[in-house]
Amino acid sequence: MSDVVLTGDRPTGQLHLGHYFGTLANRVALQGVHPMYVLIADYQVITDRDTPGEIQRNITELLLDYLAVGLDPRQVTIFQHSAVPELNQLLLPFLSLVSVAELSRNPTVKDEIAHSSQSAVSGLMFTYPVHQAADILFCKGTLVPVGKDQLPHLEVTRLVARRFNERYGQVFPEPQAMMGASPMLRGLDGGKMSKSRGNAITLAATEDETAALIRKARTDADRLITFDEEHRPEVANLLTLAGLCLGRPPQEIAEEIGDGGAVTLKRVVTDAVNDFLAPIRKRRREHGEADAREVLAEGNERARERAIATLDEVRAAMGF
Amino acid sequence: MSDVVLTGDRPTGQLHLGHYFGTLANRVALQGVHPMYVLIADYQVITDRDTPGEIQRNITELLLDYLAVGLDPRQVTIFQHSAVPELNQLLLPFLSLVSVAELSRNPTVKDEIAHSSQSAVSGLMFTYPVHQAADILFCKGTLVPVGKDQLPHLEVTRLVARRFNERYGQVFPEPQAMMGASPMLRGLDGGKMSKSRGNAITLAATEDETAALIRKARTDADRLITFDEEHRPEVANLLTLAGLCLGRPPQEIAEEIGDGGAVTLKRVVTDAVNDFLAPIRKRRREHGEADAREVLAEGNERARERAIATLDEVRAAMGF
Repeated sequence: MSDVVLTGDRPTGQLHLGHYFGTLANRVALQGVHPMYVLIADYQVITDRDTPGEIQRNITELLLDYLAVGLDPRQVTIFQHSAVPELNQLLLPFLSLVSVAELSRNPTVKDEIAHSSQSAVSGLMFTYPVHQAADILFCKGTLVPVGKDQLPHLEVTRLVARRFNERYGQVFPEPQAMMGASPMLRGLDGGKMSKSRGNAITLAATEDETAALIRKARTDADRLITFDEEHRPEVANLLTLAGLCLGRPPQEIAEEIGDGGAVTLKRVVTDAVNDFLAPIRKRRREHGEADAREVLAEGNERARERAIATLDEVRAAMGF
Repeated sequence: MSDVVLTGDRPTGQLHLGHYFGTLANRVALQGVHPMYVLIADYQVITDRDTPGEIQRNITELLLDYLAVGLDPRQVTIFQHSAVPELNQLLLPFLSLVSVAELSRNPTVKDEIAHSSQSAVSGLMFTYPVHQAADILFCKGTLVPVGKDQLPHLEVTRLVARRFNERYGQVFPEPQAMMGASPMLRGLDGGKMSKSRGNAITLAATEDETAALIRKARTDADRLITFDEEHRPEVANLLTLAGLCLGRPPQEIAEEIGDGGAVTLKRVVTDAVNDFLAPIRKRRREHGEADAREVLAEGNERARERAIATLDEVRAAMGF
């Protein structure tokens, strides 16, 4: 049986280079190789905050980012979680297959709860791993690109698939995690890369904005540029970024810069990033909101056809 | 604003006289007065047991019972829970409005857990009051006929409606409970009436089956028949049953029987029940499986239209 890839994002803002090298590049590489579903997880936005914010705007930005990096909507089904009721209905039978004790033990939920802006843990947050099972299994996803922190969630998906099959007959595959091989990219201040911290280069940033952000990046006073992740993490991070953009080892770039100092380093990084983003910016200019809407409408329809087929199978297996 | 009634049953077997006087009679009286939705709660069957059993067969029986007691599918929308994905999708936003602590405190869930045949509490059982909120609010139900044990669930529905309106703007009414006025009917052995205990007269029972069941009913040795619920509960229960079927006070029937003893009492009850069930049996014979299927298909379609409209409103209110 051929693999099916399921991946996605919460529509909480523009994507940045951390997203690109962490997951988007991988999606572009896999498209056309396997059927792929990209979920825009709009309901997830309310798992850890009270109001969804500018969700419509964020979804449009996300779609424009996808098109800009080269995701091809003819090869990839991009869809919005809340537009596929048949996917969400899977939550009901799936909830019956997982115990409250198992949900309480989930370390990722524990962690999300600790970082939530809400005063109490909502039922949505608590049952989140089961929603993810529905997200993955609706299209019979077999490969799920995940970060390390998502591994316990995927275990719940595998559990749900296994128990459903045991109880009602073989319907679902047990999906496998696909861990990224890309090095971890930190923000320009050395902290976790995040748009809200102002330390991230978004895919939509202009050349000038990019240059300004890198100019403010933290470095050190040693003019000899070396790649030393332990003792010079900020410099190493900039070299990693340039290396990813140029497709070259960061050590080699450090050697070329030699004793050029932070100024040369930042010029090299800025040029590397701007050259790298040039075709992405070009594709972004070629697409407008109308394209985004069309891509989403078509993706929603395809995802829905898939979900209807799976739900039919589930209801038949259950004897409904 | 006019009232909308939401009510329903789990498809776990044939309905009996306890159901009739407890809820079905009320539905028949209310049809045509208010729009009414009757939910066949197929997913609920797996909240407290592992497999749904003969669910298809049970759903057909339920529909034939509905038609037999005189529910008019032109006036009442009878539908199957699992056939309305847009209703089930409401679970996602609703789960975000209720905390895990609130779900843990729910006394009905605690009680259901205590009586469950499952070894662990499932996520479906734990979140059940939120499912019920979706079941009631999808059609903007305002009146919900409930037993006393269901009152805490309805409080969760009211909470969900209130919080949704506060957070996203006025969409949902806060439904009211409608408590039955009918006296409690026990089984023919004095215990809780239940088909599985063999102490219930089903609506589908023949005249002979009915007579045989009542013949085996528990009574006492006192030939003078009196209506004394405290000291002669079994005799009082038979008198209540006859009274409900005849539309007369049970005390009056007791006086007429006088010292006729258990034999006369049972004859009076048998005649009362069989006369009462005669038109119901007649209507049952007039309908077959094809009618049941047609009623359900039409009801599902109408319920779905309603759910789609509500979900659209919900998504718009949330800014999706």
